[in-house]
Amino acid sequence: MLANPIQKYKPFVPFDRDFSERTWPSRRITTPPIWMSTDLRDGNQSLIEPMSVERKLRFFDQLLKIGFKEIEVGFPSASQTDFDFVRRLIDENRIPEDVTIIVLTQAREDLISRTVEAAAGARQAIIHLYNACAPAFRKIVFNMSRDEIRNIAVTGTRLVKQHMAKYPQTRWGYQYSPEVFSTTEPDFALDVSNAVAEEWDATPEKKLILNLPATIEATTPNLYADQIEWMHRNLARRDSIVLSVHPHNDRGTAVAAAEFAVMAGADRIEGCLFGSGERTGNVDLVTLALNLYTQGVHPGLDFSDIDEVRRCAEYCNQLPVHPRHPYAGDLVFTAFSGSHQDAIKKGLSQQQADALWEVPYLPIDPADLGRSYDAVIRVNSQSGKGGVSYLLEQEHGLVLPRRLQIEFSRAIQRVTDETGREVTAASVHDIFQDEYLKQHAPWKLVRHRIVGDPSAAEGHTFSIEVDLEHDGQVRTVRGEGDGAISAFVNALGLPVRIMDYHEHAIGTGTDTRAASYVELRLGDSATGFGVGIHRDIVTASFQAVLSAVNRHVKAGVDAMPAEAAQSA
Amino acid sequence: MLANPIQKYKPFVPFDRDFSERTWPSRRITTPPIWMSTDLRDGNQSLIEPMSVERKLRFFDQLLKIGFKEIEVGFPSASQTDFDFVRRLIDENRIPEDVTIIVLTQAREDLISRTVEAAAGARQAIIHLYNACAPAFRKIVFNMSRDEIRNIAVTGTRLVKQHMAKYPQTRWGYQYSPEVFSTTEPDFALDVSNAVAEEWDATPEKKLILNLPATIEATTPNLYADQIEWMHRNLARRDSIVLSVHPHNDRGTAVAAAEFAVMAGADRIEGCLFGSGERTGNVDLVTLALNLYTQGVHPGLDFSDIDEVRRCAEYCNQLPVHPRHPYAGDLVFTAFSGSHQDAIKKGLSQQQADALWEVPYLPIDPADLGRSYDAVIRVNSQSGKGGVSYLLEQEHGLVLPRRLQIEFSRAIQRVTDETGREVTAASVHDIFQDEYLKQHAPWKLVRHRIVGDPSAAEGHTFSIEVDLEHDGQVRTVRGEGDGAISAFVNALGLPVRIMDYHEHAIGTGTDTRAASYVELRLGDSATGFGVGIHRDIVTASFQAVLSAVNRHVKAGVDAMPAEAAQSA
Repeated sequence: MLANPIQKYKPFVPFDRDFSERTWPSRRITTPPIWMSTDLRDGNQSLIEPMSVERKLRFFDQLLKIGFKEIEVGFPSASQTDFDFVRRLIDENRIPEDVTIIVLTQAREDLISRTVEAAAGARQAIIHLYNACAPAFRKIVFNMSRDEIRNIAVTGTRLVKQHMAKYPQTRWGYQYSPEVFSTTEPDFALDVSNAVAEEWDATPEKKLILNLPATIEATTPNLYADQIEWMHRNLARRDSIVLSVHPHNDRGTAVAAAEFAVMAGADRIEGCLFGSGERTGNVDLVTLALNLYTQGVHPGLDFSDIDEVRRCAEYCNQLPVHPRHPYAGDLVFTAFSGSHQDAIKKGLSQQQADALWEVPYLPIDPADLGRSYDAVIRVNSQSGKGGVSYLLEQEHGLVLPRRLQIEFSRAIQRVTDETGREVTAASVHDIFQDEYLKQHAPWKLVRHRIVGDPSAAEGHTFSIEVDLEHDGQVRTVRGEGDGAISAFVNALGLPVRIMDYHEHAIGTGTDTRAASYVELRLGDSATGFGVGIHRDIVTASFQAVLSAVNRHVKAGVDAMPAEAAQSA
Repeated sequence: MLANPIQKYKPFVPFDRDFSERTWPSRRITTPPIWMSTDLRDGNQSLIEPMSVERKLRFFDQLLKIGFKEIEVGFPSASQTDFDFVRRLIDENRIPEDVTIIVLTQAREDLISRTVEAAAGARQAIIHLYNACAPAFRKIVFNMSRDEIRNIAVTGTRLVKQHMAKYPQTRWGYQYSPEVFSTTEPDFALDVSNAVAEEWDATPEKKLILNLPATIEATTPNLYADQIEWMHRNLARRDSIVLSVHPHNDRGTAVAAAEFAVMAGADRIEGCLFGSGERTGNVDLVTLALNLYTQGVHPGLDFSDIDEVRRCAEYCNQLPVHPRHPYAGDLVFTAFSGSHQDAIKKGLSQQQADALWEVPYLPIDPADLGRSYDAVIRVNSQSGKGGVSYLLEQEHGLVLPRRLQIEFSRAIQRVTDETGREVTAASVHDIFQDEYLKQHAPWKLVRHRIVGDPSAAEGHTFSIEVDLEHDGQVRTVRGEGDGAISAFVNALGLPVRIMDYHEHAIGTGTDTRAASYVELRLGDSATGFGVGIHRDIVTASFQAVLSAVNRHVKAGVDAMPAEAAQSA
């Protein structure tokens, strides 16, 4: 049994008496805050495998595409990889004119010097200095008094200014974080913040970014909002400060904390896509932005292709986005119960193109995010279990990836709508075959030859020659890639982007076949699946790619034939 | 780019003027609410594959073990499986005396009749009736006036009473939910609720459970709290009502909404473990309970073995708990950066057994949940990439499951502490071998014979005979199971519970070997991993089981030898 917590834990109470002057509960957010992504710093720092430079560059480009104007790109004094990455961004001129990079540092002079050196030469850059201020940290980690802690912040600020002065070609900004603000006595946090603003000589023209992190989320989010509003009202140079927050999610309330902080006076939010970051993560900027969107406020960030953003984050972080993650999870635009499906159907049929969105159970139009709504149909079978995926697995050994399960339910729905009958257990496999396995036009695989040595230690280069039937005509195409599938895709010469790939064996022994599931885009199409089943795993994969391509073409996506394709 | 949302979305505004009478922002939660788990209803209803009866029973038993006293067990009029499950609970006398089951129904008489029939004979049971009240639903789904909607609720209540009267041996309770309360005009929600309370003739002795669902989360959680507080103050028979909330998580703020609702006057919270449920899920009861715990308030629920609870939920829901999920994710008690690790080390070394918990970056003692803290050590390598897992994968083809990556970092930490040196890339594989692959005592596999036909259509029964060396002596043991591993575990006769299992191939062609990773408990031990590598996949699995068992024994876990073991 859980022990009695009374002796071990006590709530953090920021104020002796209730902060009854609060006004934030009456406020609404009508303009977006300044967004700052710390995916490449706080997010990256807390991965089991930090990102390679290739992944960091991909993530950085994705952040630009979304529209971030402030991006924390690393902790260069703590990591050579981070230092090199920052230099590469600057030296290769990869930072657009209207984007500012941020680099984090502790308050030691050698680290500050190295950090400023890392960012020097950027058009504009922000040096972000932090030191921990909460009482437990003062006592346990540093054994320092309040004065000593304040002095670290002020001296650090002075040193930052001195080192910045060496590189006048860069337009420098400055950010200070009293780390663990969330459990720091407000009067001390205010004292340190005012002292730093003074040392920086903050003015409305030369603002200090003052960032107040919930380094560890310690209270219900209304108390964090109280703390922010109290600071907002009491800061000496409020008009010379960009008030920023950096909530973590230890209590599962970071999104609320960030929203309330803005209502309480904050101007800026730091966080990560999908809530990446240390322990339970930083606040999720995707959810925050789309929460604004569904209130009629444009967030200034672009998540109109949420699958692409998600795919990038999953690839770079090597962590999944949960199927129930707001706005982005696989299951958030699905309906399972008949009554929900009926209500949604009525709503969708009555929804006018330019009218207020009023579809029951769908708080946002999935199409706004490049997604679609799916009714997951249950199959009436005598087992009482009824799942489509269950039937395919039990009777045909097919283990569908979750997103394919959802996609396939669209085909089931179509048959239900067309025939007006419920789908039976027996017909599920037929529908699956028609939908995925019998897609042989316009492209059909005739044969393929793979050249090269996949087990070679270096440069896993595959060469491939494929005979394809296209509208009845056989052509031979060639391609290379770092794997058989990418070589095949390159040989096709079609604008195919592989989004996901799964495979498994069906059966055992001499009867074993491979099932391959490929999710891909053709040009600017939405993602769609293809399936291949064959004795040979490579052939199954190629079939899956063509199945997906053919389904896209059938759905009206224009697939230009390969420029590189050669007639046989 | 995201479209301009101004025409398409507008915020839901519950009150014409600001609800400035609110008192909830000044309140604290000092006693736990009544908890109600709807995992077997709202959770189950929104799974791609709804739970089988076996899974439902396992989940039900887990909920009892946690300490839930109110459990919604199904929607019996909508599903024969649910009906049968409820009957089985009652007829097999599986419901403890102090536990009340709840069954959900729509307001049609045939459905009410069937629902009451399903629960009849239980010692006590609650019939839960709902109908949608929000304006969009009235207009789009029902095309009904306020009066008509109110009438459905009142008539339904009367019918419920009538049908309950047929089964006087059951102590009946009644719950009503104005569905989509979250976007219903408060005055209309109040009107319907008062009418239902009157029809039920609610008294302090015969309370009505009035449940106010955020069926779709539509506002920042402060507005939901305002709505709840307004209802709390204005309900006609407040002393005869158990005020309940049922938040969903569409905006990622369900936890905050539930906490504020309790501060605003709610007595009871409905939700699911780890936030399972329709779309983005119901509010997560694990996070809510442990949020209370870390404020010094015992939640009355037992999560002292969070891994077991999580394992059960993952098995029954067939959905993962995210690695960053508060209190339960794989990564929430890990520290990656040197400064965090140093601070935690200092905190842990200064922490007294009975003192207030004050360890930096750890808001809860992981041991309270049966977990442990892990410092994930990075390896200095010239590549600058540095990850332990990266090295094992690149150089040895080993793809460690995430939890093993974290566990293995403990071994790395130990070596770092013992030698005082940083771990080098070259030594990582040696440490891995010592820790997992060279664990041959006290148990060692000599040979095994598998009997039976795994490809038989029915009753996948495996029989196995294993020769084992134990402390130098070879014995032969026999066992059966529905798979090779379970047969092997049964043959061992040790109190082994397999928690997780992964495998993959290493290399290709004639050189292929299988790597097998098994996470298991020995008796009441914490979970721990074992690894086996062998040409034969089955042998690799058995080696992995013994590797884990031997590591547990080495760590001091008592493994009683098999009763069934026979000396050769």
